[in-house]
Amino acid sequence: MQENYKRLEKILEKHHAIGYAQAVMSWDGLTGAPESGSDARSRSIGALSALSHQLLINDAVKSDLDYLLGNMHSLTEIEKSVIVKTKQIYEKIAKIPVDEFQDYTALTTKSQIIWEDCKRNNDFEKFKPYLQKIVDYTNKFADYRGFEGHPYNLYIDDYEEGMDVSLLNEFFHEIRKVIVPLLKKITAGKVRIKKDFLDLVYPVDAQDEISRNLLEIMGFDLSKGMLKTSEHPFTNGIDINDVRLTTHYYENDFKSAFLSTVHEGGHAIYEQNINPLLAGTLLATGASYGIHESQSRIYENNFIKSRPFINYYFPVLKEKFPQQLNEVTAEEFYRAINTAQPSLIRTEADELTYCLHIMVRYELELALMDKTIEVDDLPVKWKEKMVEYLGIEPQDDASGVLQDVHWSAGYFGYFPTYALGTAFAAQLEHYMRKEIDVDSHLASGDFSVITKWLTDKIHQYGAQFTPVEIIYKSTGEKLNAKYYCDYLERKYSEIYEL
Amino acid sequence: MQENYKRLEKILEKHHAIGYAQAVMSWDGLTGAPESGSDARSRSIGALSALSHQLLINDAVKSDLDYLLGNMHSLTEIEKSVIVKTKQIYEKIAKIPVDEFQDYTALTTKSQIIWEDCKRNNDFEKFKPYLQKIVDYTNKFADYRGFEGHPYNLYIDDYEEGMDVSLLNEFFHEIRKVIVPLLKKITAGKVRIKKDFLDLVYPVDAQDEISRNLLEIMGFDLSKGMLKTSEHPFTNGIDINDVRLTTHYYENDFKSAFLSTVHEGGHAIYEQNINPLLAGTLLATGASYGIHESQSRIYENNFIKSRPFINYYFPVLKEKFPQQLNEVTAEEFYRAINTAQPSLIRTEADELTYCLHIMVRYELELALMDKTIEVDDLPVKWKEKMVEYLGIEPQDDASGVLQDVHWSAGYFGYFPTYALGTAFAAQLEHYMRKEIDVDSHLASGDFSVITKWLTDKIHQYGAQFTPVEIIYKSTGEKLNAKYYCDYLERKYSEIYEL
Repeated sequence: MQENYKRLEKILEKHHAIGYAQAVMSWDGLTGAPESGSDARSRSIGALSALSHQLLINDAVKSDLDYLLGNMHSLTEIEKSVIVKTKQIYEKIAKIPVDEFQDYTALTTKSQIIWEDCKRNNDFEKFKPYLQKIVDYTNKFADYRGFEGHPYNLYIDDYEEGMDVSLLNEFFHEIRKVIVPLLKKITAGKVRIKKDFLDLVYPVDAQDEISRNLLEIMGFDLSKGMLKTSEHPFTNGIDINDVRLTTHYYENDFKSAFLSTVHEGGHAIYEQNINPLLAGTLLATGASYGIHESQSRIYENNFIKSRPFINYYFPVLKEKFPQQLNEVTAEEFYRAINTAQPSLIRTEADELTYCLHIMVRYELELALMDKTIEVDDLPVKWKEKMVEYLGIEPQDDASGVLQDVHWSAGYFGYFPTYALGTAFAAQLEHYMRKEIDVDSHLASGDFSVITKWLTDKIHQYGAQFTPVEIIYKSTGEKLNAKYYCDYLERKYSEIYEL
Repeated sequence: MQENYKRLEKILEKHHAIGYAQAVMSWDGLTGAPESGSDARSRSIGALSALSHQLLINDAVKSDLDYLLGNMHSLTEIEKSVIVKTKQIYEKIAKIPVDEFQDYTALTTKSQIIWEDCKRNNDFEKFKPYLQKIVDYTNKFADYRGFEGHPYNLYIDDYEEGMDVSLLNEFFHEIRKVIVPLLKKITAGKVRIKKDFLDLVYPVDAQDEISRNLLEIMGFDLSKGMLKTSEHPFTNGIDINDVRLTTHYYENDFKSAFLSTVHEGGHAIYEQNINPLLAGTLLATGASYGIHESQSRIYENNFIKSRPFINYYFPVLKEKFPQQLNEVTAEEFYRAINTAQPSLIRTEADELTYCLHIMVRYELELALMDKTIEVDDLPVKWKEKMVEYLGIEPQDDASGVLQDVHWSAGYFGYFPTYALGTAFAAQLEHYMRKEIDVDSHLASGDFSVITKWLTDKIHQYGAQFTPVEIIYKSTGEKLNAKYYCDYLERKYSEIYEL
């Protein structure tokens, strides 16, 4: 028993080291590594994936795993969770031939670079063969793995365990019922919010100081991580004691980095507050993509963009940017960063329209896997869906179907977790308010109690529990879109005087 | 045949990917990664080393290797060299138990961090147990591997194939005969060189522009690599198309980064000019540490610090630093960066005294492995040797025995390659001058012909040939200390009017 576990632990230690290396290589590749090295980088990442596969997927591991799964009694709770998680990963990839898995990893690494180029040049044609190959692999791997109902269920579950097409359809149906009419009322309404002052020149150095200050306020320990810049902001929890995040400063767009930093900061705080006993195990990560997103969203939308916090923080901003914010009040700033308006780019979308962007992607992914549409049809279908949900049409593919990196990385099933996380953030806030006086903490710029609450309920557990369990443990009920719908109704009715 | 090679190639591809990952992790660790992550980083690097070991050192690889070594006829020249190199690595580590190898790697990774701390706090006592363990492993591994004559032969050969204690003794004897009296004459002589202007305030940004400009002039392609800063300058040839180097700017010491950058630039140009057909193989690196050092030294000492180049470049410096260099002539600048004077720190030593620092280390390493001294004795012995060779005594261990990272990384046998490389640089320059008009190229700031000569003779081959072969191929004779001795005599007699 002890022997089986020790043996498996040694394998997992090496498996973890490969993942650690890939995380560092990815960070490096996205934060300044020379483009000329991208081919060699892709090949190395691909070869490491194959090695990782080879290490974990073999009869010896399978037999130890099966034995341990049948003899869990003498294991600690953490060890039990490690075994269950390992088995899950085993099942997920065991049926995929190692060579195809390696080719696929090299393909997606390469495709991300090609995608960047295609997006820059608005060239869907050049991207198409890569995307086609990725879609083919996705379907092929679904066949290898086997699935119940819809093949897409498999991929949704990879990112959000316990979720499937029918639950998602229901979820989107519920929020669509609220968002679409609310947006119509706003668009037809009389309130126009002033926000042009956000697009004056805000020097990058000063923006960077604000970013670091906000992270500190939120409770992120910058000495145990780092903030850099990259084309697209992201967080990389290389290790509990080495959590890195990026932002992107635009001199003429203050809101962008302001919100990106606190968004990634939410992810980063989650990674930093995981129980140290889980460090180096498969559990030292978020419970799911949706739960992770709930933490970035709750800091970004529910806390930093809140009126109490903006009232507290605006004087700091005004001191840093006296000219740019000269004639602006805290209330005006609050409204300016909380406007709702249909737009083309998901990452720049506001809270209200954001989920509509997700629905566009969700439905297209579903259709691609249904084979009711082809890769070829994507640009046209994209535009149709944008008109249907947001009432606007992108004039090119760069601001349409090419805008997101996800498909180039093979992340089908990922997008819905953004919507789920956003909804869960509202549910969490609702329950947090029953226990602590959130507004008074925000109004005094003191996040310690808030972050402690989230650490107690969510962060510390890492991936020790499933998302379904985490949601239930922290709020006493399953995911309920009602809180999110109520939140949107309340917030936007007030701002837009509906 | 083809089958054996293909199988081995697949293993080597993964082996290379691990090395690639470790190179990126090392770069990351030394250029800004949070210190809090160093434990996890050490563990991961250690686990990857074990994996690399496990991958390469096994009966299947041994049998393929042995078969291929006996059937080389149908292999290309490059394939043959790959096989020979692989066998060499195999022999080097096969006899070391994998667990001990992993422990040792984790130990040296950790020790480097401890060393940094101990150096900062001048605390040899704290460093001692780590160094003791490393020395113990070094001796133990020598016993596992087996050796002829002196155990230190083994480690010298790891860094400089073909070299041994008796050849090194002879080499150091020869150069000592020239350097020691030359230094005495300089110290006793009447010439005093003005150099205080090098220690005025030189803004870091402007220094950085000069560094980049020098690299460009030398022929390093910065778009296929990068220059950053780190505590100690180094070069990391992650891949032929991704060669990275660091420097360290001190606002009050212009010479430091000026020379560090061109020194590392020489290493970096070597890595960048390796034949692309060798990329991703074990041959995509220098022929040896000594040959690598010859390239950093030849650019630094023989070219950039030369009178023709300084005459050419001084106006650029004067334009960049008009106040600091206001009353300085090119000739004065040339002399200032070419002074010879005993000093405590190896990395800041001038060309003439540099090898004396190496002799101190060489003799201590030899004695440690002979067991004629103990780790405990090192601080005292260090001071004695410094007095013997340089006539000065460090007042603390930080500027004495703790100054270099090497021992904390287990690099016994490495130091002598610095001296060998410096000597070989002089030999190369001698032969280069027979074929091209070096001075006129330096005087016009055009390194293209010079760098091409070095690429043709040295760089392109990577590790395809042994250092002994490379030296013979490029100069028609074996390493000959005479050229270096002549160079020093000529240069310093002229500068110091002896």
